[in-house]
Amino acid sequence: MKKTEPLKWTKKHLLGIEDLSGDEITMILDQAEGFREVLARPIPKVPTLRGKTIANLFCEPSTRTRASFELAAKRLSADTLNITVSSSSFLKGETLKDTARNIEAMQTDMIVIRHSCPGAPHFLAECVKGSVINAGDGPHEHPTQALLDVMTMRQKLGRIKGLNVSIIGDIAHSRVARSNILALTRLGANVTICGPKTMIPAEIEKTGVRVTYKLEEALAKADAVNVLRIQLERQKKGVFPSIREYIKGFGIDKEKLARYAGKKMLILHPGPINRGVELSQDAADSEHSVILNQVTNGVAVRMAVLFLVSQIKGSGKNFK
Amino acid sequence: MKKTEPLKWTKKHLLGIEDLSGDEITMILDQAEGFREVLARPIPKVPTLRGKTIANLFCEPSTRTRASFELAAKRLSADTLNITVSSSSFLKGETLKDTARNIEAMQTDMIVIRHSCPGAPHFLAECVKGSVINAGDGPHEHPTQALLDVMTMRQKLGRIKGLNVSIIGDIAHSRVARSNILALTRLGANVTICGPKTMIPAEIEKTGVRVTYKLEEALAKADAVNVLRIQLERQKKGVFPSIREYIKGFGIDKEKLARYAGKKMLILHPGPINRGVELSQDAADSEHSVILNQVTNGVAVRMAVLFLVSQIKGSGKNFK
Amino acid sequence: MKKTEPLKWTKKHLLGIEDLSGDEITMILDQAEGFREVLARPIPKVPTLRGKTIANLFCEPSTRTRASFELAAKRLSADTLNITVSSSSFLKGETLKDTARNIEAMQTDMIVIRHSCPGAPHFLAECVKGSVINAGDGPHEHPTQALLDVMTMRQKLGRIKGLNVSIIGDIAHSRVARSNILALTRLGANVTICGPKTMIPAEIEKTGVRVTYKLEEALAKADAVNVLRIQLERQKKGVFPSIREYIKGFGIDKEKLARYAGKKMLILHPGPINRGVELSQDAADSEHSVILNQVTNGVAVRMAVLFLVSQIKGSGKNFK
Repeated sequence: MKKTEPLKWTKKHLLGIEDLSGDEITMILDQAEGFREVLARPIPKVPTLRGKTIANLFCEPSTRTRASFELAAKRLSADTLNITVSSSSFLKGETLKDTARNIEAMQTDMIVIRHSCPGAPHFLAECVKGSVINAGDGPHEHPTQALLDVMTMRQKLGRIKGLNVSIIGDIAHSRVARSNILALTRLGANVTICGPKTMIPAEIEKTGVRVTYKLEEALAKADAVNVLRIQLERQKKGVFPSIREYIKGFGIDKEKLARYAGKKMLILHPGPINRGVELSQDAADSEHSVILNQVTNGVAVRMAVLFLVSQIKGSGKNFK
Repeated sequence: MKKTEPLKWTKKHLLGIEDLSGDEITMILDQAEGFREVLARPIPKVPTLRGKTIANLFCEPSTRTRASFELAAKRLSADTLNITVSSSSFLKGETLKDTARNIEAMQTDMIVIRHSCPGAPHFLAECVKGSVINAGDGPHEHPTQALLDVMTMRQKLGRIKGLNVSIIGDIAHSRVARSNILALTRLGANVTICGPKTMIPAEIEKTGVRVTYKLEEALAKADAVNVLRIQLERQKKGVFPSIREYIKGFGIDKEKLARYAGKKMLILHPGPINRGVELSQDAADSEHSVILNQVTNGVAVRMAVLFLVSQIKGSGKNFK
Repeated sequence: MKKTEPLKWTKKHLLGIEDLSGDEITMILDQAEGFREVLARPIPKVPTLRGKTIANLFCEPSTRTRASFELAAKRLSADTLNITVSSSSFLKGETLKDTARNIEAMQTDMIVIRHSCPGAPHFLAECVKGSVINAGDGPHEHPTQALLDVMTMRQKLGRIKGLNVSIIGDIAHSRVARSNILALTRLGANVTICGPKTMIPAEIEKTGVRVTYKLEEALAKADAVNVLRIQLERQKKGVFPSIREYIKGFGIDKEKLARYAGKKMLILHPGPINRGVELSQDAADSEHSVILNQVTNGVAVRMAVLFLVSQIKGSGKNFK
């Protein structure tokens, strides 16, 4: 397909990777590269979103993602309004819709939402006039995490197309896994997922991924592995038999790296790491690790997303 | 009374509607109209309070009012300092006076306070040098809420004088009701209050309002109704027999609206709505509803209040 | 010692008074005096740290110190990021090191940390690239508190050298006492500590202080007394027999002041005061009290510290 015109961003919301074409993902990454350079400046700010107000509506605890979005907004010179609903009256009998419409009626321009219910951001996008950014909706999607993961791989390896990327851990319950699979396959990577059988969703192969239950197969020939955080609290529910067993089968340490992985294989992790569980102390701090690069790229990717959706007419408040 | 000179704002604090004349209320509303236009600009900011710091001292949970004050301050280019005392050491054996004087000694200029004790803002105003704004003091007053309610009615109906306004719900325990009654009667509206007998304070007629225990009488001929939020937790204390009974008698739905209310009657609600209790789903979203306008006007009214009190000499810090 | 060149600030971190020479303490105080004048301006801001981001990582509840650091950063035009870990996922199995390195990877420049473990800031300083400021580490040090105390004494009395300063209360468990002793002795003050025997650490005289168990001796000839906050919760653990007994022996009231203290003796307190315990109501509000001056100076001292460490090459982020 020959392109004669540059692609133009058309999405008012960022609800999930599911809605994005490969070209759109690439567009975000390219934009994020530009903002990464802004972050390196002595005064790492641009006036791009001056006068805009971005509400961070966090209905699930999150310091890391909230901080990253807050910094992204500030680097763009936007004002931010943090709303954490656990400590608020917003939840007392008020529907999410009322909450969001109230926030918007205060003349905010975009809502960044984290919520424990899959689809909450999509629902919001129907209720409000401004843009909605999904910062994680239950086990469904976490699009900006996948974007920062892919950005980090592309930055370190020069491309995504044709890369062998393995995702290791509790695939079935992970929004990070889901968004990564979507982003990586759309950009032409070969994705392998790996974990205990109880953590691999049925019929996952239909998404175009390869499945293995053996860590050595996931590490062999991988250009990058994305190691998921094990939710230790889930263990009690019988998803996997014991932490000791998980570590033995799927925990990555220096020894397994030396035996199975290539020397230049990247290790990614969405954080926070359970050191000694999914990653050993030395693996987490090894030369394979690009985990802190991910965090830095997270701010750049979120700046890119906020910037791109703000370019759409009607993305912000529509004062009457 | 013939006026030859324009009225000048003279109040250093906003402690309650009780302290304001009708002219002063009108002055705030007029100022707020101006700021409402600022909010509609692409960059909705004015440098009015640049260099000032406004402390939001919230001793009771509140996301909505806190967010509105925070945005109002930011639109005026003020810095804000949010202090929520439940999560803080401020309450550990320290008196409110010490807390406030400490905040002020950090060179803040105004304190916006929400507190569960009636009169807490008035007490503060005696202790500190700067301005104090009441953001709700127990069941006593919530002046900026009343101002935004009145602003919304004036905006939609062109005037307050002579309007028929009904306030419906738990009048006895409501600071919103109290501040609304004061504001509306001072501006010449005819106020009717309506609710179960257990929720109507004794001798309330002395404030100049009409009382009815029948919703149809409160709706008939009303230009606007201000529907209060039912505190469901209060039900256990025997204030009213059951939610079902309350809904039957005082809940507003489309059917009652069609039967008793005029087509142009406004519905206001201070939020958050108990949908299905004091307002049915369809009534809350009906064309009668100006609830989101209230939220928008809330930011404008709070900008007006912060601006006006800041004009008074000695309203801000007095550094020694 | 004859100085031919002006002293130059060389410290990248502020971890404790222990690391500072008397000259370095004086340098901070002199710088803070300059910023105190900035705070008195109509627009109390300087562009000094524009473009820098300061993360406040508070792992122990604190409103007062957090607010003071936040305002100090804002007065210097820095951006701030507040991270309170109790309400966050940062602590869920993640080490403090990972937390700090993540915050830094988001391109923040300095970390202000409060933590219940002595030495936590020193540990952080080894892990991160940017500057670390100790905002209180368990019972170990609270350097900015000591600096603001000393600044207040110097401001009111013109010097520190040769002053008689008494510190009264639970010396053994107090980071404020520890940092004050270090700062005051290094600047040449004569320090007396006073409290019940159970609250005086063994061999404390080796730090160069005089010990007394009688309040009258601590008050007599004192130019200033720094009265510590009694941790009422500690009483249950048997450190002292009863509050009544403590008040009788070590509580300061107007009567004891009149009997034992000089008329110009200053009373300092790190706040929040237990009124009626370590200080009576009238003593806390007497002309001796410089407690609110301390709070104001706290912002100036923190501005000075943030400014000075920011001058060191490599103090901020080092983007790669």
